[in-house]
Amino acid sequence: MFDLSLKAIRENTPLIHCITNYVSINDCANILLATGASPIMAEAISDVMEITPRAKSLYINLGMLSDVKFEAMDLACKIATENNVPIVLDPVGAGASSYRREAALRLLDKYRITVIRGNSSEIKALSGKLGTAEGVDSFEILSRRKDPSEIAKTLASKRSVIVAMTGSTDTVTDGNSTYLIRNGHPMMRSVTGSGCQLSALVAAYLAVNVITPLDAVAAAVCAMGLAGQIAFNRLTEIDGNASYRNYIIDAIYNLTPETLKEGAKYEIK
Amino acid sequence: MFDLSLKAIRENTPLIHCITNYVSINDCANILLATGASPIMAEAISDVMEITPRAKSLYINLGMLSDVKFEAMDLACKIATENNVPIVLDPVGAGASSYRREAALRLLDKYRITVIRGNSSEIKALSGKLGTAEGVDSFEILSRRKDPSEIAKTLASKRSVIVAMTGSTDTVTDGNSTYLIRNGHPMMRSVTGSGCQLSALVAAYLAVNVITPLDAVAAAVCAMGLAGQIAFNRLTEIDGNASYRNYIIDAIYNLTPETLKEGAKYEIK
Amino acid sequence: MFDLSLKAIRENTPLIHCITNYVSINDCANILLATGASPIMAEAISDVMEITPRAKSLYINLGMLSDVKFEAMDLACKIATENNVPIVLDPVGAGASSYRREAALRLLDKYRITVIRGNSSEIKALSGKLGTAEGVDSFEILSRRKDPSEIAKTLASKRSVIVAMTGSTDTVTDGNSTYLIRNGHPMMRSVTGSGCQLSALVAAYLAVNVITPLDAVAAAVCAMGLAGQIAFNRLTEIDGNASYRNYIIDAIYNLTPETLKEGAKYEIK
Repeated sequence: MFDLSLKAIRENTPLIHCITNYVSINDCANILLATGASPIMAEAISDVMEITPRAKSLYINLGMLSDVKFEAMDLACKIATENNVPIVLDPVGAGASSYRREAALRLLDKYRITVIRGNSSEIKALSGKLGTAEGVDSFEILSRRKDPSEIAKTLASKRSVIVAMTGSTDTVTDGNSTYLIRNGHPMMRSVTGSGCQLSALVAAYLAVNVITPLDAVAAAVCAMGLAGQIAFNRLTEIDGNASYRNYIIDAIYNLTPETLKEGAKYEIK
Repeated sequence: MFDLSLKAIRENTPLIHCITNYVSINDCANILLATGASPIMAEAISDVMEITPRAKSLYINLGMLSDVKFEAMDLACKIATENNVPIVLDPVGAGASSYRREAALRLLDKYRITVIRGNSSEIKALSGKLGTAEGVDSFEILSRRKDPSEIAKTLASKRSVIVAMTGSTDTVTDGNSTYLIRNGHPMMRSVTGSGCQLSALVAAYLAVNVITPLDAVAAAVCAMGLAGQIAFNRLTEIDGNASYRNYIIDAIYNLTPETLKEGAKYEIK
Repeated sequence: MFDLSLKAIRENTPLIHCITNYVSINDCANILLATGASPIMAEAISDVMEITPRAKSLYINLGMLSDVKFEAMDLACKIATENNVPIVLDPVGAGASSYRREAALRLLDKYRITVIRGNSSEIKALSGKLGTAEGVDSFEILSRRKDPSEIAKTLASKRSVIVAMTGSTDTVTDGNSTYLIRNGHPMMRSVTGSGCQLSALVAAYLAVNVITPLDAVAAAVCAMGLAGQIAFNRLTEIDGNASYRNYIIDAIYNLTPETLKEGAKYEIK
């Protein structure tokens, strides 16, 4: 299944509309090209009106959010919802910034977001405010739970969204079925925007597989993790995080459907 | 001739004022440094007023255009025109976005643009609106023609501009003389902003050769294509588009006037 | 001492709040991760209010300055001053742009800036306007002096700030004690934003050493220079400034406290 998704990206070169932060915007474009998709970065209102309806998926990333940018994101999500374009939301920094957390929640309240991709702190931040009754308490109860994947499942169920929560084990869940994924390498954290890049990949995999989106998201998470492993094996003693950044994108470029199928390490619960 | 242009850049370190998109802005700065020019990225109105008159060329790139940015571009083009600073316009996405296409046409209508550098879709988009009489028809007639370089020639003649249209064969034309250039490698398309980087190089070559600008533009196109070939030959099996991006800039850094002279593959018609 | 600073960064992972230009923003984030710090890029007013008070240092970089960005910088400096968060100011282009020079002087007049890091042209630009009586004359007298480190010392004394002026020899001074540092390599100038990256490192070293900040700044300057030397030694004949950029960040990633201690080349006057 995963192999077919990657094959479909390479065959269809889906157009991915990205509104994302300027720290990792170049890496996001290059990783989309590496996997075979066609990125377009556009955030002027006129561009959003023309480009979003034609995109195969929309990628919204809240890193370095500004009010002007949020206006473009809001419109893009509206158009994407109306046109059945799947939306990937990366709530970068939602754990550290209430401004970004509230922006994420506003988009989740108003539009049909397909996937939320974040780390556990970001997913927790979005989980705690699902209603005035639960408020902060809900957040505190959640954060004490043993199994971190429970937080992802709860958010997925309540919001009717797929949640991809990355960490030492990655969780991809729609609330009913859950992938637990064990690809990846801890050194990926030393590359700025490696999470943003993964979210971009998720948008590409989703673009060619709207029938079974949970599998598409899991495939993207496995692909990124596998690229992190392949790139890590390539490192010499004098390489550091800058070379690692390049090697990860290189590995996505060279990833074959077969390698992805064989290298994906997951269980479904 | 080409070798002398490159030599002149290295000897004079011309100041290139760039107003460009944030996806490839870092690569544009590094490729300008690699070729021996001195880039300055500035888009505040006050900065434009002070920096554009002192620049040896102005590089305007419409990727990720915004209204605020267009205001800076419009002023910069006005100042450059008044001060005889050559202007390179890269209409990124003009084929996909009417917002950017109209911005490009407005600059072409108002100011003395020296060079338009784009792919065939962008050059076509700018060709179709040269008058109400021709309108869309003109565009449709043009797009059916066999020889794509005709589109570039027609635009160059009507606008009194040099057109550099890149593709499997690159066309550089002022409407009278035409370079057909066969350097480059298809994998360059997998590097985000490789076109933007070429346009930056064009600005550098133009800065030191205002007497025969057509030759300067052709030299820049050959240099970029040659760098793409040299970089491709350096790729190992595990390298992908991220390493390729670095190798292209490295090749520009190491390009000698002699290598450029010997490696340039073109005919003049 | 230098070795202890680097060790402290790795042990404490200090949060560094950066408001910086989009040319080198990715490199600044990656070099901060390479040295063991935790970068956060945020420039919305709401984010500044929430993030600056919790940061261990604030990094302000005037490259590609805009009015909107200056507003965020001004607020961030105000909050940092109130919360004793050390501030590193990089006045990129202050030598070429009066807009940026005046912005730098306004921040210096209003807030307790801890460190100014710039090249000699930028430091000179900030030295000439210390009062209406001295005005431009002061600047002209300063620029004729033989010893460039005198300019840095004078600025440091008048502004009660640490000045890190980089060049063939780097000067780090608080007006009383002066480090003259002889690490680094001339090719570092061919990497866009290598100065911006150094300023980011300064912010990281400062974050863990508020007791002897002069030593912290000197340690960061030595670390960056040493990385430039190590990376240069790694270059092959076909490598250029793009690979060099990666190798410098890689060298920071692999730099050990011992290597820094042994490789730092400085004298104190």
